[in-house]
Formats: sequence, C-alpha cells, structure tokens
Amino acid sequence: MKIALDAMGGDSAPEEIVKGAVLAANDPERDFEILLCGPKARVEEELKKNAYSGDAITVVDAPDLVAMDESPTQVLKSKPKSGLVTCVALQKQGLAQASVSAGNSGAMMAACLMVLGRAANVARPAIACAVPTAKRQAILLDCGANVDEKAAALVDFALCGSVYAEAVMGYENPTVGLINVGEEEKKGPEVLQETHQLLKKSPLNFIGNIEGRDFIKGHADVAVAPGYTGNVILKLMEGFYELSHEVFGEVNTEKSREFNRLWDYRNHGGGLLLGLNGVGIITHGRADSVAIRHSLFTACQFAKGDVPAKIEAKLSAIKNAESGVL
Amino acid sequence: MKIALDAMGGDSAPEEIVKGAVLAANDPERDFEILLCGPKARVEEELKKNAYSGDAITVVDAPDLVAMDESPTQVLKSKPKSGLVTCVALQKQGLAQASVSAGNSGAMMAACLMVLGRAANVARPAIACAVPTAKRQAILLDCGANVDEKAAALVDFALCGSVYAEAVMGYENPTVGLINVGEEEKKGPEVLQETHQLLKKSPLNFIGNIEGRDFIKGHADVAVAPGYTGNVILKLMEGFYELSHEVFGEVNTEKSREFNRLWDYRNHGGGLLLGLNGVGIITHGRADSVAIRHSLFTACQFAKGDVPAKIEAKLSAIKNAESGVL
Repeated sequence: MKIALDAMGGDSAPEEIVKGAVLAANDPERDFEILLCGPKARVEEELKKNAYSGDAITVVDAPDLVAMDESPTQVLKSKPKSGLVTCVALQKQGLAQASVSAGNSGAMMAACLMVLGRAANVARPAIACAVPTAKRQAILLDCGANVDEKAAALVDFALCGSVYAEAVMGYENPTVGLINVGEEEKKGPEVLQETHQLLKKSPLNFIGNIEGRDFIKGHADVAVAPGYTGNVILKLMEGFYELSHEVFGEVNTEKSREFNRLWDYRNHGGGLLLGLNGVGIITHGRADSVAIRHSLFTACQFAKGDVPAKIEAKLSAIKNAESGVL
Repeated sequence: MKIALDAMGGDSAPEEIVKGAVLAANDPERDFEILLCGPKARVEEELKKNAYSGDAITVVDAPDLVAMDESPTQVLKSKPKSGLVTCVALQKQGLAQASVSAGNSGAMMAACLMVLGRAANVARPAIACAVPTAKRQAILLDCGANVDEKAAALVDFALCGSVYAEAVMGYENPTVGLINVGEEEKKGPEVLQETHQLLKKSPLNFIGNIEGRDFIKGHADVAVAPGYTGNVILKLMEGFYELSHEVFGEVNTEKSREFNRLWDYRNHGGGLLLGLNGVGIITHGRADSVAIRHSLFTACQFAKGDVPAKIEAKLSAIKNAESGVL
C-alpha cells in the first residue's frame, strides 16, 4: 500500500506536512509507504531536519507550486507537476492507492474528479467528514463540495456515506439521518421533503429527519445535508471545539481528555472524497503534523475498504432491483 | 407596559409557565404587568401553589387548549379562546404590548401574522434569536420560520435583525454577516450570491460572508442564513451546550460560569418574531420558569424598542433613497 502526499499543500507546508509524514513513517502500526510529492531538494531538506533516514518515505519530484486561492481549472491546466496533481496522477497510474493534500481543496477535488473520474452512476461526488458525536463518530456529508443539489444527489450522498461507514468504520447497517428542521416528513425545504421520500423507499437504514441537536447526540451514523449546510455544520463544530478549549482548556479529567481527543479536528482524518474511482483526502488547510499523520492512516483504511467498488455495486444493485425508485 | 403570556403553552405548562410569571412578578427590576392567559380556575390554582398574591399578574380566562402538533390553521379557526390566540388578540386590542408563548410555534407565528399583520414592506417575517458568541450576543435569523427563501427575503431578515440589534440591544451600527461556505462573494448557493450583492449595495453595515467558525467567534452582530440552515445552527448550539455540560458540568471556574450563563438557552429570551406589526416571542417548548421569566423581560425590552415602526421607517427610507436597489 502506497499513499501519495502533497508536500506543498496547506498553511504550514512543507514543514508540518513532512513532519507528519515522518510521524507516520516512524509509527510501528504503519502498514503503508509514503510518496512525498514536492520540489525534491526542498522536501529532502525538510526530511533531513526531521532526521529521517528510513525507507518508508520516497520523494517524488513535483516542482510546480499551487496557491490556496488559485482556480482549479488553472491548476489542472498549468500545474501538472504540482504536488497535488502528481499525487492524483500516481494513483491513476497504479503507483499509489490513495492521495492526500492539505492544499487548495477546490483544485484537489477537481484533480481527483478529472484524473480518477466518478464512480459509475454517481452524479455528484461529495466531501464526507468523520465527526464526533456524543455517541460514536458519524459521517457528515456533503461538507461543501456541492451547492444547490437536487434530491437525487442527496440520496447518492446517503449511499456513499453508508458504504464508507460500513466498509471503513465497520458499522453494521449504519443508520442514515437527513438533517432537517423537524421530524415530520413534510418539514423543511422542498428538496429535503423530496429526498426524504426517496430515502424512505431506498434499502438504506433511513431513520428519518434529524435536527441539529440530535445530530450532536449521535442519533445517526450517516448525517446527510446539502453542501452549504454541511459545511456550516462542520465549521461550527470546529468553532465550538475552539471555544470549549478557551473556556475549559485547563480542565484535565478523564471526560475532558476524551472530549478533546474526539473533537480535535486534527484527529478526524480530513475530508473524504466519496463517489470517485479512487481514494482522495482533503486535509484541513491549517493541518499540522498530527493532522497529516492521521490523514495518512485514514487514507490507508479508506483504500483498504475498497469503497469505490462497493459504492458502484450497491448503486447498481439498487437500480436493477427497484428501477424507478432512485 | 403589559405582557400577555400563554399559560398553557410548552411541555411543562401550566406549572413552569405560572412559576416563571411569578418569578418575573417578584423581580424588583420588573417594570411591566403580566396578563396570564389560560383556563381561569387552573391558572389561579397554580398561582396559589406559588403563593402569589401581588397585583402584577392578572388572569385572563382562555379555556381552549392547543396541542403542540395541531395545525396552525386549525388553531386559528377553532381555538379563538386559547391562551395563545388570546395573548395576541389582547395585543391587537391595545390591552397588551407584547405576547409570549412556549406552545405550538407554528400556531403562534400564524396568530401573530394574521392578527397583528406584517410590518409594511416586509415580505416574510422571521424568527430571530439572540445567541451567544465568543464576543457579545449576536442576532441569528431566520431560525426556521421560512424555507426556500428568495434573496429579497434574506435582505429583509438582515434589515430586521439590524434594527433589533440597534433598538433593543443598543448595538451601534451593528455588523451584518451572511453565513456562507467561504468569504469570496462568488461562493455558496445561488440565492446567497444574489443576497450578497444586494447587501453590498444596501446601507446596512454588511461585512460580507462569514463561515460557521467566524460566527461562533462573534465576527457579526447580525448573522443571516436561510431558515433551514439557521434552525440547524440554533439546534446545534443547543446540542453543543448540552454536551459541554455533560463533559465539563462539574467544572466551576469564573470562565465556566460565564460560559454556562451565556450558552444556557434559558437565558436567551426565546425566538423573536421580527417583521410584524407587534411584538411576539416564541419561547422554547422545553421552557422552564427561568426561561419564561427571561422571555418576559425580553418582551418588555422588545416592546420598548419600538421595533416595528423602526423597521418600517428604515425600509421606506431605503426604498425612497435608492429605488431599485432593494
């Protein structure tokens, strides 16, 4: 198993990215190698600073640099030798099984979409995040890859999230909740009322609408919302965690340590790209070495789960069995 | 100043409602009277339990009972003598200056809308909430009165929220933020891109898009979102507060006490109905006496602020000065 990592993506690249790669490389539980993609001399210098001399990291030269606000089309056209595009290209060539970047997220999504392609029958890939709840982690999606989605896209999100929760997180028959303003099926925006009906007829373990409070309580393993709202939720959770850190930062109890471990975004693995023919992870732009280490381990689990094939199989089974329903 | 209170609305009515009215009545800072609307004998029995014999509370007989899930149209048609409808009718007759209910929120909104009417030029009234942030309280709206709003409605929300923040909370030239997925004006759903352009041209103190994290940090005094997303945000904040209470409930520092005071929904005053010819507050269905007491004081401030007239004045000034902009 080889994971390609963009050495130059993110606010603290390449320092924290390379440090994170070394953290992962030195971890006794690691069962993958790392292809570190960036300007060769610069990346090797960072590896030296970290005194890394093992053989779990291979540097792949990728001299082009991508800015955080560069347009995705521009990046794909003019920066084929960037760390970001190189990571995805290595996966396409079969030289890596997953790609990770903390850089320009629009460009990373576009590169994965254009180079790896969509999983068959998935209209709109989504960004999913494994987020903490009062019970166990839940998959929240879409976290901002899409806007103004139709109901069919939201149903795809639910299916992609379910497959991931089952294949990678080991949740048996994961529950799916639709984030809405009330439990009644006639509540909320029209697109959600329509989605509710489609999910009810689907073979997914749909538990109905869930409100914001129930989501935090962990009522659903997979929580589905349009990309705009999903993104707002994700960033609120980050804001809550930071605020609680300010207020309760000095508290040191078993409960508080567990809360901090679960709610620290660095331990979440990053944004999982679902609905693609491959494995892509967009790590937080503010990612430090701990977050990068975590994303690499998550990428390995994600790749092992064989998610794209399972999504395709589930979708085509549904289409064959109940044509007209989805 | 007289505040009409629905004695029979909410999960713990009439016990907690009457207890809350008595808490307010006994408060030395109170400068209003309370018209407690509900079945006379039942309400007087509760007042006796609370040993209240002062003259700040008058019981107004309102024998009809409204269920939490009854359709608003049904309530308006067949329950004119319910506590909820009576509260609003008293205001219409000039016998009260504000109406408060913790009952069926759809019915309360409908009663206010039908009986008091919309403020001139406001297309869609909104539910606003005064919510905590890491800085000072912010007005979040719409918290769920509307779905699938157009851009013009979102601009009205921004204006109503600004007027409230200025007139009632005393914020000078309050900042207005549009909750979105990124700062760039070309980000997010189409309706928000359109809203962004309208707000930029408006005389409001628009600071642009704000993300979920910035909202928690208190970047905007007035945070505008479509009703669906605003409702999800509000309930996430509630869920987050409950979770922090579970994790850090035993902590007792100056910071934690301040946090608990600010984040406890009972201290927020309830959902403020903005854009009406009058003053309506929908208190949380789970409201206890503390929440009810707070809603009564908030209603008094709200009524003193002369919000409906100020909203009308601001809207017509805008329409006259910059016709075509809003």
